[in-house]
Amino acid sequence: MIESINVIGARGRVGGAVSARLAERGVALGVDEPEVVLLCVPDRAIAEVAAELPVGPWVAHVSGATTLAALAPHTRRFSLHPLQTFTHRRGPEQLDGAWAALTGADDEARAIGLELSALLGLRAFELDDDARALYHAGAAIAANFLVTLNRVAGTLFESAAAPPEALVPLMRRVIENDFELTGPIERGDVETVARHLEAIRTTHPELEALYTVLAEATVAPTPEPAR
Amino acid sequence: MIESINVIGARGRVGGAVSARLAERGVALGVDEPEVVLLCVPDRAIAEVAAELPVGPWVAHVSGATTLAALAPHTRRFSLHPLQTFTHRRGPEQLDGAWAALTGADDEARAIGLELSALLGLRAFELDDDARALYHAGAAIAANFLVTLNRVAGTLFESAAAPPEALVPLMRRVIENDFELTGPIERGDVETVARHLEAIRTTHPELEALYTVLAEATVAPTPEPAR
Repeated sequence: MIESINVIGARGRVGGAVSARLAERGVALGVDEPEVVLLCVPDRAIAEVAAELPVGPWVAHVSGATTLAALAPHTRRFSLHPLQTFTHRRGPEQLDGAWAALTGADDEARAIGLELSALLGLRAFELDDDARALYHAGAAIAANFLVTLNRVAGTLFESAAAPPEALVPLMRRVIENDFELTGPIERGDVETVARHLEAIRTTHPELEALYTVLAEATVAPTPEPAR
Repeated sequence: MIESINVIGARGRVGGAVSARLAERGVALGVDEPEVVLLCVPDRAIAEVAAELPVGPWVAHVSGATTLAALAPHTRRFSLHPLQTFTHRRGPEQLDGAWAALTGADDEARAIGLELSALLGLRAFELDDDARALYHAGAAIAANFLVTLNRVAGTLFESAAAPPEALVPLMRRVIENDFELTGPIERGDVETVARHLEAIRTTHPELEALYTVLAEATVAPTPEPAR
């Protein structure tokens, strides 16, 4: 078992939750010769921080899109990206139930990564180093653009003098219903879709492209990856 | 109190939940001279069905985007649109906690609509008849395009050999965290956004426009309605 880890960036959103969880598990933090140094720093700082660390312990990062090469010169290295959105308002329980993408250079690296994942309470899956950008783009679409949908829908509600908070039980239920599609597009109701577009064009023309591109993606068959 | 309602379209997703709830509340259904006739039929069928009903009782629909004019020749009319997504796999409890848009021609219509809303367990807010299309466009963006985001993100995950089901705890938490924005756009991390776009262009070029339009909407200041 891993007995000591130095977390760099423990005051950040991810680093805070990770440090608190490791402390809960009895792992020694901030020791002189740690088994693992875990970088919870912004993506653009990873390479610089890694380059300054003494070679020896395992070195890992928690970034979604950054490859292992950023951890040079260290070769005992891996990445464990918790697939979750973190807030300073919550504690280590944020890790519970979340999945995590694990990338290791070899079997030994993946084994230590799995151990860390178990310590943190994450469910790890393996991710190829060269698939990270695509994986992280998917995560950003699901999480960050969900915020955008709520904000855009709330803007239309405000213009219609309807309460934006009324959207929350609706959006929760979409997830609870396993993303079952309902509504005018599902029903093939082109008149209602045309009415939406007309209303958006009149009141919020800056949102027409967003509605159109998402409506097209909604009716599109699930695409195959380009070769 | 309303003692009798005829629900037309009781085998549909909304009509099924509404009928079951009214039965739970002891309202008489399918009587000869009902106080209210509630149309739970597809939007495009509302006008035709309404035109065939004898004038006398209250006539109402549960459509989001359809105006009251579709209920002609009836003048004792209103609309109550439950702001929720419904599935045949659930029962009347689907109505609990949902908001509903109430549109009535006058005070008496709004009063009977409020009574129906309370019977169903909905939280009503008033909506202007001419704001319905804009309101319903907002609802479709929040609910239907949420399905699309999950599907698109899952497509990228599959291409990255990551498990699409790992997106679910992430998307749930975005809502639980009150839609607090995190991720590369929030951090102003343009390198990571560029890496996302490059990966999408290479593997799923058909999704580039979707990513771009949503990224632009994410950084845009909340727009004012056009005048």
